[in-house]
Amino acid sequence: MTATSPPPADPPAVGGPPPEPMDLEAFRRNGHAAIDWIADHLATLEDRPVWSGVEPGEVRAGLPAHAPRDPEPFEDWLADLDEVVVPGLTQWQHPGWMAYFPANSSPASILGELVAAGMGVQGMLWSTSPAVTEVESTVLDWMVEELGLPASWRVDTGPGGGVIQSSASDATHTALVVARHRATQAGAAAEDCVAYASNQAHSSIEKGARVAGIGHVRLVEVDDAFALRQAALAAAVAADLEAGRTPVFVCSAVGTTGTTAVDPVRAIAEIARRHGMWHHVDAAYAGTAMLCGELRHHQDGLDLVDSYVTNAHKWLWTNFDCSLFWVADRGPLVDTLSIVPPYLRNAASESGAVVDYRDWHVPLGRRFRALKLWWVLRSFGVDGLRGRIRDHLDWAHDLADRLDADARFRVIAPTPFGLVSVCHADPGRNDDFLATVTAARDLGLAASEVDGQRFLRISIGATWTRREHVEQVWELLDRAA
Amino acid sequence: MTATSPPPADPPAVGGPPPEPMDLEAFRRNGHAAIDWIADHLATLEDRPVWSGVEPGEVRAGLPAHAPRDPEPFEDWLADLDEVVVPGLTQWQHPGWMAYFPANSSPASILGELVAAGMGVQGMLWSTSPAVTEVESTVLDWMVEELGLPASWRVDTGPGGGVIQSSASDATHTALVVARHRATQAGAAAEDCVAYASNQAHSSIEKGARVAGIGHVRLVEVDDAFALRQAALAAAVAADLEAGRTPVFVCSAVGTTGTTAVDPVRAIAEIARRHGMWHHVDAAYAGTAMLCGELRHHQDGLDLVDSYVTNAHKWLWTNFDCSLFWVADRGPLVDTLSIVPPYLRNAASESGAVVDYRDWHVPLGRRFRALKLWWVLRSFGVDGLRGRIRDHLDWAHDLADRLDADARFRVIAPTPFGLVSVCHADPGRNDDFLATVTAARDLGLAASEVDGQRFLRISIGATWTRREHVEQVWELLDRAA
Repeated sequence: MTATSPPPADPPAVGGPPPEPMDLEAFRRNGHAAIDWIADHLATLEDRPVWSGVEPGEVRAGLPAHAPRDPEPFEDWLADLDEVVVPGLTQWQHPGWMAYFPANSSPASILGELVAAGMGVQGMLWSTSPAVTEVESTVLDWMVEELGLPASWRVDTGPGGGVIQSSASDATHTALVVARHRATQAGAAAEDCVAYASNQAHSSIEKGARVAGIGHVRLVEVDDAFALRQAALAAAVAADLEAGRTPVFVCSAVGTTGTTAVDPVRAIAEIARRHGMWHHVDAAYAGTAMLCGELRHHQDGLDLVDSYVTNAHKWLWTNFDCSLFWVADRGPLVDTLSIVPPYLRNAASESGAVVDYRDWHVPLGRRFRALKLWWVLRSFGVDGLRGRIRDHLDWAHDLADRLDADARFRVIAPTPFGLVSVCHADPGRNDDFLATVTAARDLGLAASEVDGQRFLRISIGATWTRREHVEQVWELLDRAA
Repeated sequence: MTATSPPPADPPAVGGPPPEPMDLEAFRRNGHAAIDWIADHLATLEDRPVWSGVEPGEVRAGLPAHAPRDPEPFEDWLADLDEVVVPGLTQWQHPGWMAYFPANSSPASILGELVAAGMGVQGMLWSTSPAVTEVESTVLDWMVEELGLPASWRVDTGPGGGVIQSSASDATHTALVVARHRATQAGAAAEDCVAYASNQAHSSIEKGARVAGIGHVRLVEVDDAFALRQAALAAAVAADLEAGRTPVFVCSAVGTTGTTAVDPVRAIAEIARRHGMWHHVDAAYAGTAMLCGELRHHQDGLDLVDSYVTNAHKWLWTNFDCSLFWVADRGPLVDTLSIVPPYLRNAASESGAVVDYRDWHVPLGRRFRALKLWWVLRSFGVDGLRGRIRDHLDWAHDLADRLDADARFRVIAPTPFGLVSVCHADPGRNDDFLATVTAARDLGLAASEVDGQRFLRISIGATWTRREHVEQVWELLDRAA
C-alpha cells in the first residue's frame, strides 16, 4: 500500500456492474476469516502492549494518499489491519485494561452487532421495523426489573420508559434540553436558566448545557468523599433565585468519573422538587452494577427523579454504543422532541398503540442496538453478570484494603464500586510514582487529578481481566513506590 | 420461549466464574454460524415480504416476560431470530426496497462493523486509539477529493475538516448549535435567533432548532420544482431584521426528502454571507452521488458555505450510522464543543498536533465507524461505486420518462437523482392508486404528500436492486393505474 497512486479523475459512465462485488459466497468465506481474525486478535491481546506507541500522523502515513479506484482483495484488508491499524490502537479489550472506565465488549455482543448490521434495518419508527422497537422496549423493561429501578419506568405499564441512546453524553444532553424547553415554554429565557451538578460531575453536564443553550452551570462543592453537599446546592439555588435566574436542572451522580463518588439522590430530589427542576441521575458507569441488590442503597430516592442513564457499554459486556436512558414520564420528552413530517406519517403511529423512538432523542435513524444487549443477557444470564460484577467489586475492595493498610500509599476516596483511587503517601514522590506506573505497557493505568491532588485511577471491570491482573497491578505499584 | 419464568430475585454472590461464558473457540464456531445466517437471510430476502405484517405488541408477546437468569444456547438465539425477530422486520435490504430512501449496507460494510466491534476500542480522543481518528480523517479527506468538495475542507491541509457523526439529524443539530452559540456569544438572545430553510427541508431542521433552543424557524416558500425561492428568503430575513430578530442559520437542501429538490446554494450563500448566517448544506441523500461529476452543478457554491452533511449510510453501501459532516472552518465548531476535564488531559492533545473528535460533536465516546467506509471503498473501488450510482440514475430517469409519457400518470417533480415522484393523473383515482401500490408486499413503495398533493415516492438505490425490480415497479403501476 503506497501513496503513489494518481489523483482521481472522474471516469465516464460504465455499463451494468452487478449490485455487489463481494457476493454472498465470498461474504461467507471472508466473514469466517474476519471472525477468525477477531478470535486471534482477542486471544493474543495479552501479549501486546495496552498503549499504542504511534506518533501523530504515523497511521495516516501508512494509508494510501487517495481512495482505491478499483476493488482490492479481502486478504489485503486484513493484512492492513495487522500492519497499519492494530499498531495504532489503544487496547481497551486488553485483560490489563484498568484505565478510564471499562469499555466492555464480549463475544455475544460482537455477534449481536454483526447480525444487526447484517439485517441492515432502521428503527426510527415502530412501523419501519417493529421488532427493533419491541425488542428494545422489552429488554429495557427487563432491565428495570433486574436493576431494581421504579416499576413506573417500564414502557409497557408505566408513564415512563426506557430507550437506547448512543452515549451518556447524548442522554444527559437530552435531559437538559427537556428541562430548558419546559422552562422556556413557561416564559423563562434560556440564558437565565441554571443547571446544577457537583464539581465532580462529568464534563457532559457542562458540555450538554452549553449545547442546549442553558445560560449558567453551577458546579457545586462536595464533601470529603467528593459527594455533592446538599446545603451548598440549596444555597446556590437560593442565590440564583434571588438574582432572578431560573433553576431548571440538577444532576445527581451515582459514581462520578473522577473517583466514583455518590451524590445523595434523595436529598437532591427534595431540592429539585421544591423548585420544579428536572432531576437527572448520571449513573453512566455504576448503574449497571445495581444488578447487585447490595449496592442499591447508593441510589435511594429514584422514585423522585425524572431521568436516569447508565451505560451497558461500560460495565455490562456490551459494545459501545448502548446507553440505557429512562424517564419517569415520557410526556415531556416526547412533547419536546416530536415533529412529524408527511413522509413519516403512518397508521400505527397515529393509533397511539406504538412507541416511536425517533421522538425520544435527537437523531432520527437508529440501529438495532437492543439485539446485542439481549444476546449478552442470553450468553451470561443475569445471574452470571451479577457474579462477575461481584468479582470485580471483591478485587477492587481487596486492592483498596491492601493499599490502605500500606503506609506508602494513600487511598484518596472511597471504593463503592470497581474504581480504586490512590496516590503515593509522600507528596514529593507522587509525580514520579504516577509517571512510572502509567508508563507500563502491559497494564493500562491512567492518572487524574481532583482538587489539585494527582492520583491513579485503577478501574477494575474489563471483560477479560482476571484476578491475576489485579495482582500484577499490586506488584507494579509495590515496585514503583 | 415462554413468559412463565418466575420474576427475578437477587441471588447471593457466587464464586469466580470465568470472564466470559462464550470462549473464543465457541465464538469462532458461533461466529461462522452467524455469518452463514446473514448470508442465508440476504440470499432469501427476495422471497420474503418487504413489509412486516405484525400487529403492535406481537413481537413482544413472543419474548419472555423476564431476562434470562442462566445462559441459553446459541442455537436458541438464532432460532428466535427466525421465529420472533425476522417476522417483525421491515426489510430495508430487500431488492424491491424503494420506500423512503435507501439504507445501504453491503457485505464489506457488514464485515467492517463486525471487525470494529471485535476490536472494541474507543476513539473519543486521538490518544484513546490513534488509528480510529487517523483512518477517519484520511478517509474523509479522500472523500473530499472524490466528491469534488472544496479542498480547504480537508483535515490534513485545510482550516476545515470532516468527521463521522451518527446521523444527518445530529450533524444538522451540531451546525445549528454552533450558529446559535456564535450569536449568543455576540450578545443575541437565543429566543430571538432565527433559522431558515425551505418548506421542503427535512424535519431535522425544525427539530434541531427546537433542541438547540433557537427561537424561530422560517420555512420559506419554494418554486414549482420545490426549490427555495431566493427572493422569499431575502424577504423573510429582512422582515426578521426589521422586527429586531437575529438571523443565525440557513440550510440549503441538495436533494430534499420529499422530492429531492435542489435549493440554489450559491444564491443562498450570498444572503447568508451578507447577514453573517451559518450556511449548512443538507445533502444527506444526494451528496454521495456527487461521486459522479456530472451531478456537481447541483451544488455549485460550496466554496461559500460553512458546513455540509451527506450520509454514507444512505446511497453509499455503508451501514447506518455513518453521516459524513464537514465544516469549512473547524475553529467555531471546536470552540463551541470543547470542554476538557482532567481525566481526559494528555500530551498529544495539548501539543495541538492531533485531532480530538470528541470536540466535533455532542457525544464523547465514538465507535470505529471509518473502518466500514474504508472497506466499502476497497470492496467496490470508487469507480465501481460511481458505476452503480449511474445505473440507479439511469433506471430512475428511464422510469420517470416512461411515466411522463403515459397520460395515466403525472410526474410531480424533477428527477435529478434516484427518486421518482409520481401520482395518478386523475385526482379522483389517486388515493386508490396509492393504496394499491403501497399494499404490494414484494416491493417496498411509500406514499407522501407535498403541498396537499399525495404522491408515490419511488426511491431507486438499494444495494440489491437490479433493473428487473424497477421493471416490476412499472408493471405494478401499470396494473394499478
